[in-house]
Amino acid sequence: MSDEVKVVLSEKDIPTAWYNIQADLPEPLPPPINPATKEPIGPEALAPIFPMALIQQEVSQEKWIDIPGEVIDIYRLWRPSPLYRARNLEKALDTPAEIYYKWEGVSPAGSHKPNTAIAQAYYNKAEGVKRLSTETGAGQWGSALSLATCLFGLECTVYMVRVSYDQKPYRKSMMHTWGAEVFPSPTDRTNAGRAVLAKDPDCLGSLGIAISEAVEDAATREDTKYSLGSVLNHVLLHQTVVGLEAKKQFEAIGKYPDVLIGCAGGGSNFAGFAFPFLADALTKGKKMTVTAVEPTACPTMTKGPKRYDFGDTAMTTPLLMMHTLGHTFIPPGIHAGGLRYHGMAPLVSHLIDLGFIEPVAYHQNPVFEAVIKFARTEGFILAPETAHAVKATIDAALEAKKAGQKRVIVFNNSGHGHFDLGSYDAYLAKQLEDFELPQSTIDEALKEVPVV
Amino acid sequence: MSDEVKVVLSEKDIPTAWYNIQADLPEPLPPPINPATKEPIGPEALAPIFPMALIQQEVSQEKWIDIPGEVIDIYRLWRPSPLYRARNLEKALDTPAEIYYKWEGVSPAGSHKPNTAIAQAYYNKAEGVKRLSTETGAGQWGSALSLATCLFGLECTVYMVRVSYDQKPYRKSMMHTWGAEVFPSPTDRTNAGRAVLAKDPDCLGSLGIAISEAVEDAATREDTKYSLGSVLNHVLLHQTVVGLEAKKQFEAIGKYPDVLIGCAGGGSNFAGFAFPFLADALTKGKKMTVTAVEPTACPTMTKGPKRYDFGDTAMTTPLLMMHTLGHTFIPPGIHAGGLRYHGMAPLVSHLIDLGFIEPVAYHQNPVFEAVIKFARTEGFILAPETAHAVKATIDAALEAKKAGQKRVIVFNNSGHGHFDLGSYDAYLAKQLEDFELPQSTIDEALKEVPVV
Repeated sequence: MSDEVKVVLSEKDIPTAWYNIQADLPEPLPPPINPATKEPIGPEALAPIFPMALIQQEVSQEKWIDIPGEVIDIYRLWRPSPLYRARNLEKALDTPAEIYYKWEGVSPAGSHKPNTAIAQAYYNKAEGVKRLSTETGAGQWGSALSLATCLFGLECTVYMVRVSYDQKPYRKSMMHTWGAEVFPSPTDRTNAGRAVLAKDPDCLGSLGIAISEAVEDAATREDTKYSLGSVLNHVLLHQTVVGLEAKKQFEAIGKYPDVLIGCAGGGSNFAGFAFPFLADALTKGKKMTVTAVEPTACPTMTKGPKRYDFGDTAMTTPLLMMHTLGHTFIPPGIHAGGLRYHGMAPLVSHLIDLGFIEPVAYHQNPVFEAVIKFARTEGFILAPETAHAVKATIDAALEAKKAGQKRVIVFNNSGHGHFDLGSYDAYLAKQLEDFELPQSTIDEALKEVPVV
Repeated sequence: MSDEVKVVLSEKDIPTAWYNIQADLPEPLPPPINPATKEPIGPEALAPIFPMALIQQEVSQEKWIDIPGEVIDIYRLWRPSPLYRARNLEKALDTPAEIYYKWEGVSPAGSHKPNTAIAQAYYNKAEGVKRLSTETGAGQWGSALSLATCLFGLECTVYMVRVSYDQKPYRKSMMHTWGAEVFPSPTDRTNAGRAVLAKDPDCLGSLGIAISEAVEDAATREDTKYSLGSVLNHVLLHQTVVGLEAKKQFEAIGKYPDVLIGCAGGGSNFAGFAFPFLADALTKGKKMTVTAVEPTACPTMTKGPKRYDFGDTAMTTPLLMMHTLGHTFIPPGIHAGGLRYHGMAPLVSHLIDLGFIEPVAYHQNPVFEAVIKFARTEGFILAPETAHAVKATIDAALEAKKAGQKRVIVFNNSGHGHFDLGSYDAYLAKQLEDFELPQSTIDEALKEVPVV
């Protein structure tokens, strides 16, 4: 590729099917179970909140699932996204490693999230749904679903975690621009929200609480379904367009990554990027290091055990087998709002335990230091969530330097930080905290995990 | 292009030379003149504030000027930018016209501005300059120069028009992230700023005032030069990469635009986009409609006469022959901060008078209505400046519908609106004003234009 920095594909290269890693698992994923009966749930249990097409995708064992033409037509607005070689960062680190990133910030909402939002809006519209409710942490998911519902002519209500609502006012304006309504969660609109506010009127909110509110909203209205931005199998499935494109792009330059890195909050950007590569590890024994990065302030993968737990605070969801800090866990108000979820996608959790994914956790300040180094060498200003992947990438590149090895490292650059610039100013003014959770806080929250 | 929406080029297609329209003008551009002697100025007059390479470009009559390899290597981070077909907007308008846009929002700073910022930082660095000073209106230019100086290891000081500094706090954070220092103008750091504050301590600022401050800063420090983001010939020259790429992209799909549209504040995004096409009008008699769009709140082209006037409020620049509202004119605080300049690029002004460019002015509310229609059909949320081009594009598409003509319309989509979302919320809450300037206000300011 001479001096070129981008590997660019044409719209003809947009994947026409999503990759379903369930087909390639050496051991099947433990099923979701009904908290009352402790038995695996059937599709009918999810029907009040999801359209049937998505429920089928959730449990499908088919390796490839066709992407509808209407979804591809909207993907065309930004897909295929470019794969970048971070030549300036390589030089700044003086590393023999090659550093690449898949740049998902080119979507209208500025992150990978529209990959599934568009698909979910499409399937809901196809089944006659008029309105979607959802939660959002940092606002990336709420923005993406607002965009998607707008393009498909659906209504949209977003419950936004209060700490992010206050930190990122422009995210709310973005959702308004696409016609959605947005409320800071916990709200007084739902039983779940009112219950939290009764205990703590100043509650910062959490994804677990906001999910409870959005699920309740959908379950209590005939015209409304619920939409989730991460964690579930069908969400991770839709995100595999990212990794499928990246594989084609590496093929185009005759390389294959040795190290793959993504940040993981609920797990969808990480999984969508990594799973198509992990297919080669699962089916062909291909060797690679796959790293999932989280904040020490919400150490789900590194400190949370794998247990059946609720996806939300109000215990309205089925029980999912996942790494969890407990559904009552409320993490500190770090700036990476999208990484503040108490659980981790069951598929990611499963692959960690099978030894295919290595989790790692970082403190907030070194993460910001890394992403500012990235901005000052590569130009782009990234989201605080993505910054965790940058930190791990820089560490991997420095490790390669120490070992004198020419490794190929790639991270999923899941979104820009244009709505997070207050955090950047806070870092530069040395006002960011490095949260270290005492083990007792985690132990306390874990007591609430049900015994199955 | 079947159903495709993007025309994507490879890095091999990044232009290797800028197009200098001065070589093709039927009548030469009136030269800048010395306000004291009323004689044309020589290069030495500009040497205290600009590096010699840029002064030479300012007066060059060569048709093509090579782009340095180091500049191209940074252009690679986002160039070539995609040309989009706005299929969803076409459908929403039910127009027989084809609507295209050149998408400059993919740059790290989010607009076309880095095209010249990178070049200017390069030439300054090459001549040993350590620090650049500049002004910024909406913040797009200040961000771009902060990025460019950061990548070339220069220091950067930005004087930001106060109304934008207050409206767009994250623009300031963005500049900080790239290591620049930013002050709301008028400041007490310069004689020019102090003089304005003495008369009006609550002054909203203007580009004319901020330019005075930045020029004074550069002129009074040995290690510092000044950098301008628009208006001057060399700035417009650097922006021609936009139009040169767009021409290649239209060639690739076998089309040629009938109508070209750009918003114009100082004129650089408009000119960079339109001049390479206008070359065909100037040298081959090619017919096309080329529209420059401005706000009625700052109607430089539509209501300002073409006269010799100062580029700044404090009368420190040479006199330029341009459409002007008078160097003392301070426009209302509209949200399109980048279109609040009292003058217009001499080259654009010249081509208006020669009949090659048609100016048009719009009120703030219909402009926001248009750009929200764009966001809700095409997805991307654009800058309020760019929104003016969208309004003119929609009008041109509706005119084509009325006439039943299949015209090819293209606009320069000069940047995203991620730092302007407060304006969007204000529009949606019906809180935006439609400024109509009384002719007396304009006449008053024009009295200050010097008699040459």
